[in-house]
Amino acid sequence: VRGAPAIGIAAAYGAVVSLAPLRSASRPRFVTAFEHACASLIATRPTAVNLAAALERLRARIAHSEAASAESLWQALRDEAETIHAEDREICRALARNGVALIREGCGVLTHCNAGALAVSELGTATAPLYLAHARGTRFRVYVDETRPLLQGSRLTAWELDRAGLDVTLICDSAAARLMEERLIDLVLVGTDRVAANGDVVNKIGTSALAILCKHYAIPFYVACPWSTLDLATATGRDVAIEGRDGDEVLSFRGKRAAPRGVKARNPAFDVTPHALVTALITDRGIVEPPFAANLARLARAP
Amino acid sequence: VRGAPAIGIAAAYGAVVSLAPLRSASRPRFVTAFEHACASLIATRPTAVNLAAALERLRARIAHSEAASAESLWQALRDEAETIHAEDREICRALARNGVALIREGCGVLTHCNAGALAVSELGTATAPLYLAHARGTRFRVYVDETRPLLQGSRLTAWELDRAGLDVTLICDSAAARLMEERLIDLVLVGTDRVAANGDVVNKIGTSALAILCKHYAIPFYVACPWSTLDLATATGRDVAIEGRDGDEVLSFRGKRAAPRGVKARNPAFDVTPHALVTALITDRGIVEPPFAANLARLARAP
Repeated sequence: VRGAPAIGIAAAYGAVVSLAPLRSASRPRFVTAFEHACASLIATRPTAVNLAAALERLRARIAHSEAASAESLWQALRDEAETIHAEDREICRALARNGVALIREGCGVLTHCNAGALAVSELGTATAPLYLAHARGTRFRVYVDETRPLLQGSRLTAWELDRAGLDVTLICDSAAARLMEERLIDLVLVGTDRVAANGDVVNKIGTSALAILCKHYAIPFYVACPWSTLDLATATGRDVAIEGRDGDEVLSFRGKRAAPRGVKARNPAFDVTPHALVTALITDRGIVEPPFAANLARLARAP
Repeated sequence: VRGAPAIGIAAAYGAVVSLAPLRSASRPRFVTAFEHACASLIATRPTAVNLAAALERLRARIAHSEAASAESLWQALRDEAETIHAEDREICRALARNGVALIREGCGVLTHCNAGALAVSELGTATAPLYLAHARGTRFRVYVDETRPLLQGSRLTAWELDRAGLDVTLICDSAAARLMEERLIDLVLVGTDRVAANGDVVNKIGTSALAILCKHYAIPFYVACPWSTLDLATATGRDVAIEGRDGDEVLSFRGKRAAPRGVKARNPAFDVTPHALVTALITDRGIVEPPFAANLARLARAP
């Protein structure tokens, strides 16, 4: 399982499934087993915020329940897991509704990495407007860049969009500028791992380069961002530490060596796209345009 | 053999080697065998300009020789092949001398694709100033991007620079902007397949993106260009047809499938960097700065 929301959903269901055999146990035994399950699940991906958050929601359901029977507690956990899943699905549907107008008949959309159904639920985030536009019969082209080093574009996004019947063309990461020059790209639409309070976007390495190319070619650059991915406690993208991953990912692909032994590699996993290069954020609360700091703060205060 | 100059040199030597057994034949028989050899060599790479040009130089030597003996003709061909090789080596040395001042102590240089010794002779083109600076004891870092889809950066440039003892770090093509943001890159230095009369640069796909990033980050963008690579008969880069190569190069990674079957790919092999994004051309006749059209024309007329 990959993709922050999908990890949270899978963890919640995972806890529920693992506790099914204890539905007739005592409350204390059930609660102990629940904590064991949480510890195991958290250990699988210690840095996954959504995973811990989902389990915290389950824990709160138990804490707020006075039920003596494990069966009641288990039903409550299942209900919470389904709610987490339903909420995520509704967020994706809202992103789809809010972004679908950007996908015009005959247009070309470039996306990066995977912010699709394989990372979230149902419609994905950046892919949500694409799936909805396609369902409505709009004809358009999607260009997917391969997203080295781990090729999420080739392996995941191209797969899921092609399977859904969209018109998908794969390109190398380095070919985006050429396609823009050929006027094949009318907009870029990506997902994000975190958006800071000023609108800076942290996303897969290669995202900021696309935003800079968009500025050069006067092409709009959109970021699909569930409200839960906003980090208003972080002032700017510069305040986010960028993970440097193992250089072996650059030196090879799926075990196939590409570079000579002894050569070192630098492999930043993410980059920061400055808010000044972002045309708009597509959130489940609506499309947010610059100035982002003010508009995000206003939306955050809205009831 | 790859790289336009290397192909020309190899073809010239190839003709000479293949004719060695005919050194005691008659002139007519030697000339017939020469033409057969030329036809075979040209058939190996019909679009290689340097290949045809090198063989044309050999042909001219025969045409201008009144020697009756095959031995004399063969000596003349060998002399011409060695001259072609020596000229290329001298061009690379001139590029090195003209560009070496750009490589300052402690700087970081990003290069793309392979414009090195594996494509040319001895010092290469874009790599020539790097090799000379290294030989002079300057310490600097070279970042090589992998250059998808064919990975010339990983497979060739990283290999030859590492082997020569330079400080080489490999990155994904999409990571260049992040390294620029981190101020690790002080200049970009690439080779070229063709430069138009206005200074537009045709080079491996991904080059123009680097130039656009350089403009954004105010980093100088240099192109090493042997005078023979200038195409003053072509007005602008837009007049150059860009080869679209087989999509399978994008769909797989060294024979390892990366994308699902059925997905199509677009694989432009080159792109055009507009002259406005080029800081200077490093040529064997000196460094050429903007305005390129005027300065190239002036240098072309110089004795």
